[in-house]
Amino acid sequence: MDEQEDRFTDPTYRAAVIDLLGTLAYGELSAFLRLASDAELAPTLTAKAALAGLAATEFEHHEQLRDRLIELGADPEQAMRPFVEPLDAFHERTRPSTWLEGLVKFYVGDGIASDFYREISDFVDPGTRKLILSAVDGTARASFVLQTVRQAIAIDPTLASRLGLWGRRLVGEALSQGQRVAADRDTFSTLVVGTEAHPGMGLVGIIEMFGRITERHTQRMHEMGLSA
Amino acid sequence: MDEQEDRFTDPTYRAAVIDLLGTLAYGELSAFLRLASDAELAPTLTAKAALAGLAATEFEHHEQLRDRLIELGADPEQAMRPFVEPLDAFHERTRPSTWLEGLVKFYVGDGIASDFYREISDFVDPGTRKLILSAVDGTARASFVLQTVRQAIAIDPTLASRLGLWGRRLVGEALSQGQRVAADRDTFSTLVVGTEAHPGMGLVGIIEMFGRITERHTQRMHEMGLSA
Repeated sequence: MDEQEDRFTDPTYRAAVIDLLGTLAYGELSAFLRLASDAELAPTLTAKAALAGLAATEFEHHEQLRDRLIELGADPEQAMRPFVEPLDAFHERTRPSTWLEGLVKFYVGDGIASDFYREISDFVDPGTRKLILSAVDGTARASFVLQTVRQAIAIDPTLASRLGLWGRRLVGEALSQGQRVAADRDTFSTLVVGTEAHPGMGLVGIIEMFGRITERHTQRMHEMGLSA
Repeated sequence: MDEQEDRFTDPTYRAAVIDLLGTLAYGELSAFLRLASDAELAPTLTAKAALAGLAATEFEHHEQLRDRLIELGADPEQAMRPFVEPLDAFHERTRPSTWLEGLVKFYVGDGIASDFYREISDFVDPGTRKLILSAVDGTARASFVLQTVRQAIAIDPTLASRLGLWGRRLVGEALSQGQRVAADRDTFSTLVVGTEAHPGMGLVGIIEMFGRITERHTQRMHEMGLSA
């Protein structure tokens, strides 16, 4: 039995990984649905297709995560279920009213979520880590969004302050729903805080992690030409 | 110069193929958007994901068609543009109000459109034919829809008459929008009716073609347990 399989005999670890994959799987599915719905706001057919393409990629990731859940003997439906309400609440409270708001939301939300999962992936077995890193790799997706937002601001600089405000609201809502999930599911904290056999980052580490995530968010806002 | 390239030197033929690919490309893009939006009505996450999967496949086809349009030196945006209004009007008039209506709409609409393109593909060059046939191949997609509709009717047989009515409404709307497109764009009729160098099916052939399409539609309705 290799190290990877060994950890799955620990029911706490298994539950944590299933929670992790479940939240990510629903995150990708709901990102698919939101992006597809935002595509309706797109000003041109080319832009609609670009957003549809981002959505399709999210769906591919969803499928990989779902397959892995089945492999682990979990029911994907049940694994995703606990995260439906907080994620839907986040989307409900941050419905973009313009095409650009949709793009900024995608860039900001996808960025923060990816950073968070990437941090957590340090504390899981290599197989799970690989899957998570592939699901959150958004390099290819980002450039279209970045370019479009920057172009729009270049044409109408007053957009910058409105979209900057929007970005701050997104972060606030993301944090408040994230805290809800963390409070409800101690599986995550066990994984991140760590145990004797598998040390995590500890409480101080967690605070530092949020610092890093915030910093990278600020960076992304600047990349779009917005202040965080 | 092979036979395929040769036909493209005829501007009427080239325009017809671009129209054909344009309408199909927008059809796939708008099917993506509608399926993704119908997924919101799905009763379970698994069903949502199944519909999202169908949508993602439509998007793949859209991409292939778009790439071919670019290869032919056409602007995909412009090639799709003439078909946006009639297709959107069709979707606007046939918004499903339940999950099952969405499934029946997909099965019926996708089926009729596929049959139509398959018939037309007899009259185009081999390269275009191959692309069209691959875009409309829905065998893999159909079984999930078929199974779900049949199960639902088995549980609640009263659904059959309501969904049957819905199916008939869909066909009516599809025909009326299809006629609009045919009246506006004589490129299609040139292709299907034919010229001396490239005989089509002729007017009688067209009437027969609609007979075949109607017959296959009736068959599909029966497969779902509905009367056409």
